[in-house]
Amino acid sequence: MNRMPIEKYRSFQPVNLPDRQWPGKVIEKAPIWCSVDLRDGNQALIEPMDPARKRRMFEMLVRMGFKEIEVGFPSASQTDFDFVRELIEENLIPDDVTIQVLTQARDHLIERTFESIKGAKRVIVHLYNSTSTLQRRVVFGLDRQGIIDIAVEGAKLVKALIPSVPETEIIHQYSPESFTGTEMDFAVEVCEAVMDVWEPTPEKKVILNLPATVEMSTPNIYADQIEWFSRNIKNRDSVIVSLHPHNDRGTGVAAAELGFVAGADRIEGTLFGNGERTGNVDIVNIALNMFTQGVDPDLDISNIDELRETAEYCNQLPVHPRHPYAGDLVYTAFSGSHQDAIKKGMAAMKQSNSGVWEVPYLPIDPQDVGRNYEAIIRINSQSGKGGVAYILQSEYHLELPRGLQVEFTQRIQEDADNTGKEISPEHIWESFQDTYLSNKGPIEFVDHRSVPDAHASEQRVLTATLKVNGEEREITGHGNGPIAAYTDALKQEIDQEISVLNYYEHSTGSSSDATAVAYVEVKTGDGRKVWGVGRHANIVKASLLAVTSAANQVNEATN
Amino acid sequence: MNRMPIEKYRSFQPVNLPDRQWPGKVIEKAPIWCSVDLRDGNQALIEPMDPARKRRMFEMLVRMGFKEIEVGFPSASQTDFDFVRELIEENLIPDDVTIQVLTQARDHLIERTFESIKGAKRVIVHLYNSTSTLQRRVVFGLDRQGIIDIAVEGAKLVKALIPSVPETEIIHQYSPESFTGTEMDFAVEVCEAVMDVWEPTPEKKVILNLPATVEMSTPNIYADQIEWFSRNIKNRDSVIVSLHPHNDRGTGVAAAELGFVAGADRIEGTLFGNGERTGNVDIVNIALNMFTQGVDPDLDISNIDELRETAEYCNQLPVHPRHPYAGDLVYTAFSGSHQDAIKKGMAAMKQSNSGVWEVPYLPIDPQDVGRNYEAIIRINSQSGKGGVAYILQSEYHLELPRGLQVEFTQRIQEDADNTGKEISPEHIWESFQDTYLSNKGPIEFVDHRSVPDAHASEQRVLTATLKVNGEEREITGHGNGPIAAYTDALKQEIDQEISVLNYYEHSTGSSSDATAVAYVEVKTGDGRKVWGVGRHANIVKASLLAVTSAANQVNEATN
Repeated sequence: MNRMPIEKYRSFQPVNLPDRQWPGKVIEKAPIWCSVDLRDGNQALIEPMDPARKRRMFEMLVRMGFKEIEVGFPSASQTDFDFVRELIEENLIPDDVTIQVLTQARDHLIERTFESIKGAKRVIVHLYNSTSTLQRRVVFGLDRQGIIDIAVEGAKLVKALIPSVPETEIIHQYSPESFTGTEMDFAVEVCEAVMDVWEPTPEKKVILNLPATVEMSTPNIYADQIEWFSRNIKNRDSVIVSLHPHNDRGTGVAAAELGFVAGADRIEGTLFGNGERTGNVDIVNIALNMFTQGVDPDLDISNIDELRETAEYCNQLPVHPRHPYAGDLVYTAFSGSHQDAIKKGMAAMKQSNSGVWEVPYLPIDPQDVGRNYEAIIRINSQSGKGGVAYILQSEYHLELPRGLQVEFTQRIQEDADNTGKEISPEHIWESFQDTYLSNKGPIEFVDHRSVPDAHASEQRVLTATLKVNGEEREITGHGNGPIAAYTDALKQEIDQEISVLNYYEHSTGSSSDATAVAYVEVKTGDGRKVWGVGRHANIVKASLLAVTSAANQVNEATN
Repeated sequence: MNRMPIEKYRSFQPVNLPDRQWPGKVIEKAPIWCSVDLRDGNQALIEPMDPARKRRMFEMLVRMGFKEIEVGFPSASQTDFDFVRELIEENLIPDDVTIQVLTQARDHLIERTFESIKGAKRVIVHLYNSTSTLQRRVVFGLDRQGIIDIAVEGAKLVKALIPSVPETEIIHQYSPESFTGTEMDFAVEVCEAVMDVWEPTPEKKVILNLPATVEMSTPNIYADQIEWFSRNIKNRDSVIVSLHPHNDRGTGVAAAELGFVAGADRIEGTLFGNGERTGNVDIVNIALNMFTQGVDPDLDISNIDELRETAEYCNQLPVHPRHPYAGDLVYTAFSGSHQDAIKKGMAAMKQSNSGVWEVPYLPIDPQDVGRNYEAIIRINSQSGKGGVAYILQSEYHLELPRGLQVEFTQRIQEDADNTGKEISPEHIWESFQDTYLSNKGPIEFVDHRSVPDAHASEQRVLTATLKVNGEEREITGHGNGPIAAYTDALKQEIDQEISVLNYYEHSTGSSSDATAVAYVEVKTGDGRKVWGVGRHANIVKASLLAVTSAANQVNEATN
């Protein structure tokens, strides 16, 4: 075992905030969402989106309900510039949607940015420069004042260029990029210097966006940073505090959630977490987390598969099968005890009729995001009776008695153990038919007639036509009903005494083509118990088929 | 836009813990790790592992340094039972590794579990039953006492069966399954009832495992639950508090980290987060988060690609390209400013020689997990000069002057914009050679000779042999050195006056086969600036090739 070279790394210095308030708060309403799929997401693709893909992504974001959409970095890429022009010139931006364009705080980039937005109704011009201690030292070779100067000069140029786009309302946004690696007092200082240029008011707020450009600490420390910033920035009522988490430590969603309760108003992220390296924070995930707490996410995620397919098409990157809410496997329970609990939970919900979603192992109703129950349960060697029973119930409308669930599930588990494969619902159904419903012998039930017993009151005499090993014959028995009389008659055909222990029957299908399904458990003379199942439009025939089925199980086990 | 049906959901009720201590704490040492890849992970696979895959996973977990490995649920699956027997009978368990087996608190399952472990040296028998309010109501139809009875009866049977495995040291573990949905006081009550049976001591501790069977809240609330439990459970010094987070809300890693500082001692999870639905918590992710803070994770993750390949082979599920630390794209920077900063950061690290890893946008040195720098930078239309320069430097040992970086990057960005594709390092190199190094005309440099100028002191006369459009000719010029003289001579061959503005030269390769690379920037009579590059073992020829290269650029642009 190799030792990892820990001496290369230093621990992150937390903010000193012993009186933090956020751990006692919960999310009560949605933030202002801003999608950066077309910018931070797009820039991180192996193949950036072509214009058709960009447009498809933009239109989907609008349909979902995003009101702020960062559409590009027009001064850094001709493709981005052209796309911004296309949106404006082809009138593709709804009145209630504001596009956002990113620019570094450098003169020629800011100028080019304003060229790109001419004619738009309303635009967030998103200015940034990097402020972290590390970048100041190794990238810029500047002290704090040098970094403030870059920000302030950029802010002044943005302000000066506003008259050049007279048809456009400009909303100001500034990011101290690499905020998480910046001293908190300096982050406030540089933001306030920018505010001095832009002079925001409560009516005309500035957006201060605080990126975890690189996620550098546990999410509670990011929340401390946000609370510290939010408590210390001047004119807080003129500021929209915005979060922009990345996911380097796999805790981007948590950072967004804790940072939001710590005082932020707005979250920038992408669908399913596309973005540089480990990605930007996943807005769909955060929004559905809110949804499962009864908080309106202000986004339409009622068809998550459509969102996912579009994102996969535009990004040419997959969504993982275990991705929260969206993956192929996330509404699937393989474990037997989980399957059993889900089945009972769904039954209880149906009975209680309260409408509140409470099903074990399913934190969200898959139907609320357009997914199906069918996918919930698959069967493998780890599955129990709950799963098998659920499949037969939901797909084939059979309500197996508990004892039969146990018997049949053992058979399915043997199949799974032998093949090592997942067992499909179709395989379960074929196996069930083959085992219980085939009526293919050795004893095959053909027909029956029954008359009152002339010699005993309340007794019936039943004559059944069978094929036994292909040879037709008639048998006759007596009993207080058809099942008892048929069981009596069958003694002639099998080696064992049998008696009926349990009997269930239910109808399936609608009234016009209703079918009865009968289940019987029989006990043999040597104490074994086996089940049989029959299905027929005539309830008596269904019962007799079930008894025949059981008799064949007895014979099978005996021979 | 569809409104999401929020009335179906209720908010999670937080724990009342206003004096919580965990937000002020940081992780200072590794937890006891327990891998559940072979159990919780395996049970959630479309195709569970066959015996060969199980063994390969087990052996890798041992090599990584796991000391506790849950190897199956032997009473629920014949495959699991057989695998436990194989491990024991073939002596595959190292002395310092303890296997763990899961069993529900039901008599026949506990008995079968003990049959599976006969002959093992040391085993954690992991007993569980479900305790949440929801499961009590809809699955079991039992009150609190009924649930305690199940746990206590199970615990008693485990204790009673210890003499049946006399060669085996049994370590006790109990999970109140669905802990996060359980009232905290009841979770403590049921755990203490089990402790009353098992009578743990500080020398012979019990493991109390607190699963987020379903992740139901933000991770800070899970941390509150853990701190509450840890502060209220009796005989805390006889207890190992263990976490078992799932990832339904995408915050499993955060829950593990915050829960760990809130008082836990141990974490159960899987490699890369395999497991039911959205998965178990990803131990590799947590361990590397610790590592980047200078905390020894006590696991060997020095070859993450090997771990990933094995996990992908065993699970038959992919690891996502953006998966923290392990994905294909996580050490890749596409953005130009990121690339530039990474380049500068790496240069600064080399200079400072402190050994401490400090590179912008790369929270970990990819080499520490066996990944390469080569993958860090790819070029597309969003990339800037930093990326192109980095490729030429790291792969081809060329130190481009800044102005040439800008000029050449524009050319590459046009390629990227036109094709919409990622540009490979090979493409960059071919384009660079083709543009600057080909010496293929119209003016082709063949050779030169130079002599002192008989008519002026410190001046040279240079005669160069060229092929111009395939036709060989000689040109002669005067100057204070070969470059000036050659530039003077070239006036005869091109339409423009040219003068050399900047000149750089460096060697590449080791001394025996060192090559010089020369870069010249020339200015034309009409004010344009272009670059040329030459490469030759002879430093003078390299310079003259560079000037020729620039002259061809001038001609190309003019024609």
